[in-house]
Amino acid sequence: MASVKRIMSELAAYVAAIADALDNKQVGQVIDLLVKAHEQKAKILVIGAGRSGLVARAFAMRLMHLDFNVYVVGETITPAIGPNDILIAISGSGSTRLVVTAAQIAKEIGAIIVAITSYRDSPLGKLADYLVIIPGRTKIARRDDYLARQIIGEHEPLAPLGTLFEVSSMVFLDSVISELMARLGYTEEKMKAKHATIE
Amino acid sequence: MASVKRIMSELAAYVAAIADALDNKQVGQVIDLLVKAHEQKAKILVIGAGRSGLVARAFAMRLMHLDFNVYVVGETITPAIGPNDILIAISGSGSTRLVVTAAQIAKEIGAIIVAITSYRDSPLGKLADYLVIIPGRTKIARRDDYLARQIIGEHEPLAPLGTLFEVSSMVFLDSVISELMARLGYTEEKMKAKHATIE
Amino acid sequence: MASVKRIMSELAAYVAAIADALDNKQVGQVIDLLVKAHEQKAKILVIGAGRSGLVARAFAMRLMHLDFNVYVVGETITPAIGPNDILIAISGSGSTRLVVTAAQIAKEIGAIIVAITSYRDSPLGKLADYLVIIPGRTKIARRDDYLARQIIGEHEPLAPLGTLFEVSSMVFLDSVISELMARLGYTEEKMKAKHATIE
Amino acid sequence: MASVKRIMSELAAYVAAIADALDNKQVGQVIDLLVKAHEQKAKILVIGAGRSGLVARAFAMRLMHLDFNVYVVGETITPAIGPNDILIAISGSGSTRLVVTAAQIAKEIGAIIVAITSYRDSPLGKLADYLVIIPGRTKIARRDDYLARQIIGEHEPLAPLGTLFEVSSMVFLDSVISELMARLGYTEEKMKAKHATIE
Repeated sequence: MASVKRIMSELAAYVAAIADALDNKQVGQVIDLLVKAHEQKAKILVIGAGRSGLVARAFAMRLMHLDFNVYVVGETITPAIGPNDILIAISGSGSTRLVVTAAQIAKEIGAIIVAITSYRDSPLGKLADYLVIIPGRTKIARRDDYLARQIIGEHEPLAPLGTLFEVSSMVFLDSVISELMARLGYTEEKMKAKHATIE
Repeated sequence: MASVKRIMSELAAYVAAIADALDNKQVGQVIDLLVKAHEQKAKILVIGAGRSGLVARAFAMRLMHLDFNVYVVGETITPAIGPNDILIAISGSGSTRLVVTAAQIAKEIGAIIVAITSYRDSPLGKLADYLVIIPGRTKIARRDDYLARQIIGEHEPLAPLGTLFEVSSMVFLDSVISELMARLGYTEEKMKAKHATIE
Repeated sequence: MASVKRIMSELAAYVAAIADALDNKQVGQVIDLLVKAHEQKAKILVIGAGRSGLVARAFAMRLMHLDFNVYVVGETITPAIGPNDILIAISGSGSTRLVVTAAQIAKEIGAIIVAITSYRDSPLGKLADYLVIIPGRTKIARRDDYLARQIIGEHEPLAPLGTLFEVSSMVFLDSVISELMARLGYTEEKMKAKHATIE
Repeated sequence: MASVKRIMSELAAYVAAIADALDNKQVGQVIDLLVKAHEQKAKILVIGAGRSGLVARAFAMRLMHLDFNVYVVGETITPAIGPNDILIAISGSGSTRLVVTAAQIAKEIGAIIVAITSYRDSPLGKLADYLVIIPGRTKIARRDDYLARQIIGEHEPLAPLGTLFEVSSMVFLDSVISELMARLGYTEEKMKAKHATIE
């Protein structure tokens, strides 16, 4: 299956391209917000639908390893969100209705909204206090080779539906974790102590 | 936050390196098994703990979009697994106890075990009928530059705990989905019809 | 802990009181709808927030044992809902926003809405095509004894928040399962064959 | 559907019968353990498979409303369990393999095991430091009337599989919550402040 290896390399190349397209200022503001939240033990809730929801959970798990006070909307022991708590909402389109409704509720309560999305002008983008734009498939500068065109969808896309957004968001958020480790002085060993032991 | 962009690029580079290290024969056998399962509407269950479990779910969601008969162990409507059904188990270490126990139960029942792991000789690796080795952090050929050494852990790793395995597995399985689309003749449009509408 | 036994008996007595208050016609219509859905393999999605969501899942699991084509909104392999599919929404207040939003989406798509709620005039109640009213705490005829008054909330309630609704809904839906077994000719043995084997 | 009402009443009557059969000493010890855990902010993890897992979550949610330091095994932000932390495991048969494996892991780590089960001599029962026996279907004193015999299974049971255990466990644990409210001085109003606001 040489093609699987080739597609995997191409996906990796696109994640690198998306890294290049990130706005350092947006990213820096979110990192600063998270560092302050860690210091103040502020409550953070994450939300996303479908595969974006899985990416949100993967991020929340690492935030827990870093001793953040973090919860996943919809899980059992998630408490009330209150004023000045933080909601991190992940939605490529920025218009997933249950996610937007959740962000609206949080906004009404006075929480801070962080949006990870491809669209600044989406309903979620407009609600956000902090925003990181992860360019979606249509936004990536088109490259010349056949596979590149396939991935971005000129032919049948190799990364269907939200795949590029989801994979890029996951790698982006893992990079945020890495930066937080440095900023907060956490070693891998220290994170391991929090890692679930019943699994 | 130039460093976040740099880490993200490095993570992407490592995913590409892992793509190179894949065994085409292993991958080909799993693709063939899945194509046959699609044809025969065989039941597929996926399992993983922690972030590997999230990767398993992300894969299951796309298999559902491709009309596979797929379930996630532990979710509400997951039925009995029986002889000749398929269990896809994801575990970097291959020794996550609840995952290994689940694989043992499935094996006793006569199911086919597919393992995605870094360790062929792990308890999960030994139980597997089909195996795809995704090299873990320690297995990647060490590169010279500072960030590379950081990622693979000579200094404090930039990708702590199972991060490299999880990200690589996610991109690998998305590449499998892409190959399955081609083999089974699915367009993105056709997959979209199955995509959850309440979200 | 004699008091725990006493509270448990009182809760049981209230569930019995709620059974008396059920509207046979409402219940009969939902049973008929489900029998028809079974026959036609119609898609059923269930939804609820918090503990009502857990009750929804407990019901979905038994429907799966009865070979219904049933899914839980928000779980991994839940597909699109379409026209004439069924959404069963559980909400005591009938105004849980994410549940109401989900019901609105389903309604726009042309799905059939079944609401299990305490309030006919709630947003969810108004959206519903089929409705079963499970009386909430304030609706139960007040009894004389001390514990009864405690449970219904004259003093500090013994069954706080939505407890009475949730417990009553669970027992009600298990009674619906029992009736469906009879109507569809399922034995316990037949249901057992579908019961998850990896657990 | 007069039969649904009748079954519901019968299920309620059986829950009351199970209340009578509870061992006050067992219940008292668990309440005392929980009161101490509250005081010391000890970590509590709950686990169960299938519908017992849903009952475990329903209990965990109320413990969270009472400010317990509680988590659900398998959810995203569940941290490591350590020595003297508490694992509450719910399994009617007491031999659900993933639950027993989890209890074994917790035991090896030095955690305190609380089992809610029908069988003292089951693998889970034997691992337990604290035990509450909730009699299963076969254990209830047989009554004379037709419906009673149906529920306990002489004819096709009205409460198939683990239904009686699950419903009884849920009502039992809600009664424990009520007792904890009294012991810890929590009002419904105070619990409401913790209740999820995004839903």
